[in-house]
Amino acid sequence: MKVALLGPPGTFTHQAAEQYFSECDPIFCQTMGEVMEHDDVAKILPFENSLGGGVAESCDLLREHRPRVAGETLLGIEHCLLSDASLDEIDRVRSHPQALDQCRSFIEDHGFETIEASSTARAAEEIGENEAAIASALAGEINDLEVLERGIQDRRSVTRFLVLDDRSAGQEKTSVILEPGSDAPGLLHDLLGCFADRGINLSYIQSRPTKDGMGEYYFYIEAEEASGRDRFEQALRCLEQKADVTDLGSYDEADPV
Amino acid sequence: MKVALLGPPGTFTHQAAEQYFSECDPIFCQTMGEVMEHDDVAKILPFENSLGGGVAESCDLLREHRPRVAGETLLGIEHCLLSDASLDEIDRVRSHPQALDQCRSFIEDHGFETIEASSTARAAEEIGENEAAIASALAGEINDLEVLERGIQDRRSVTRFLVLDDRSAGQEKTSVILEPGSDAPGLLHDLLGCFADRGINLSYIQSRPTKDGMGEYYFYIEAEEASGRDRFEQALRCLEQKADVTDLGSYDEADPV
Repeated sequence: MKVALLGPPGTFTHQAAEQYFSECDPIFCQTMGEVMEHDDVAKILPFENSLGGGVAESCDLLREHRPRVAGETLLGIEHCLLSDASLDEIDRVRSHPQALDQCRSFIEDHGFETIEASSTARAAEEIGENEAAIASALAGEINDLEVLERGIQDRRSVTRFLVLDDRSAGQEKTSVILEPGSDAPGLLHDLLGCFADRGINLSYIQSRPTKDGMGEYYFYIEAEEASGRDRFEQALRCLEQKADVTDLGSYDEADPV
Repeated sequence: MKVALLGPPGTFTHQAAEQYFSECDPIFCQTMGEVMEHDDVAKILPFENSLGGGVAESCDLLREHRPRVAGETLLGIEHCLLSDASLDEIDRVRSHPQALDQCRSFIEDHGFETIEASSTARAAEEIGENEAAIASALAGEINDLEVLERGIQDRRSVTRFLVLDDRSAGQEKTSVILEPGSDAPGLLHDLLGCFADRGINLSYIQSRPTKDGMGEYYFYIEAEEASGRDRFEQALRCLEQKADVTDLGSYDEADPV
C-alpha cells in the first residue's frame, strides 16, 4: 500500500508506518505539507508525544486539508546510538535538536560534542569520521550503521500517529474539528456539554489559533463512541448549533504500547 | 528593575521587556529553564503567538516552578532585514528557522540562500560578508546594523508574553493550573462548569501532557475576573473538589496591539 510520510527513510514516522501497515510502500516527502498534497494514497502524521505534547503543524494540516482519519498507532520512541566506528572512537553525535535534548544525560556522560541535523534520519545519512547519529534502529539498518547503544533517552516517551485514508474504517473514536468563531473560549464549556450530556467521553482536546488574530481559536477533539453512533449523531447536531463542525471520520483505537 | 529573560540582547522577548517595564535592567539567559532559576527578580516568557499557538516549554515551566503571574504584554512581531551591506550586495540571510519560515515569500522573491541560527538575535551577531540577518529592529540597533527592510514577514503575527513577579498586582484575569489526574479528558466539561455556572469567561485554555504517560494531561487556564473576586473564589473551591488546583495569581489584561 502506498503511504505518504515525512522522510528521509528511517524517521520514526517511517517506523510507525511499517508497524501499522502490513505492506507499506512509502512515499518519502520533504515536509508534512507535501505529505498532505499526495492524492489517492494513505498518509501518516506524528500527532502527539507523551513528553512534548501535540504536534501543532499536524493539527493545523488536518484543519487545512480536512482528510479522513482512518486509524492511529502508538510507537515507543527508542533512540539509538548509530555509527560505523566503535564507541570509544566517537567524539561527536549528530541528531535533530529535540533528540539531542532527549538524550542529554547520555551525551554528557560520554562528553560528546553535538551537531544539529534537520531530522534524526538525516543525521544517520550524514555522519562523518569519529561521529555517531542518534536515530531509530531502522535508520541504522537503512544506512548500514551498527547500533552501539539502544534506548539512550533520559525518559521513555510514546508518539501517537494518525493514519489518513479515504477508505475509513472503525468506530471506536471520532475526530472532530470545532470552529466557534470569535467567541471561542466562552463557548467551550457549552460545546463540551454536547458530549457530556450524552455520556460521550473525550480522549483528547487541543486548542489552536485560527491564525485570524490573537485570541481566536479552533478545537480539535477526539470523542469515544462507546455509547453508540446514534448518540454521537445527536452530539454532532448539538454542536452544529454552536460552531462550524467537521467530522473527520471514525476509527479504532491504537493498541497500547 | 532586574528582569530575567531569554537572550542574547535583541530577542523579541527583550523587546517585550523594554515595552512592559518602564526601567528594564535585563539579565540575559541561555535557556528559558535558566530564566526560571533566577530568584528575587521579575521574569518574562513568550507564551503564545497568534500563528504558532502556545509555547509549550513556557507552559510546562509554569507547572514546574509555580511562579506568580503578575502581568502580560502583547508585541506585534515585525521581522526586519538587517545588514551592514546594501540590499543588492546580500546573497544569504541568517535567522532562526521559524523566522526564515515566516519570511519565506520575501526570501524567495530576492533569491536569498538561508542559514539557520539558534535565535534571531544570535543571527544578528553572527552575520558575515554579503549576509543579512532577519531579526527585530532592536537587534539591529544593538549590533550596529542598518534596517534594510521592515515588516518582511508573510503574515503579521502577535506574541503574548507573561510577566512573572512575586509582587503581583492586578485583578482582570487569573491564571490557574488544573491537574485532574488520570481521568482528565472526561472531567474537562465538569471542570469548566465551575467557571461557566458562575458566569466566569475563559480567555485561554491549553492542555499539555503531564509527562507521566500517553493520555494524561493537565490544563492551563486563564479566567476573566469581571464578575468579582468572590465568585472567583467560589469557582476555585468548586475546582478543588475535582482536581489539584494551583492559582498562579491575578493581573491586568494587556493593552491590544
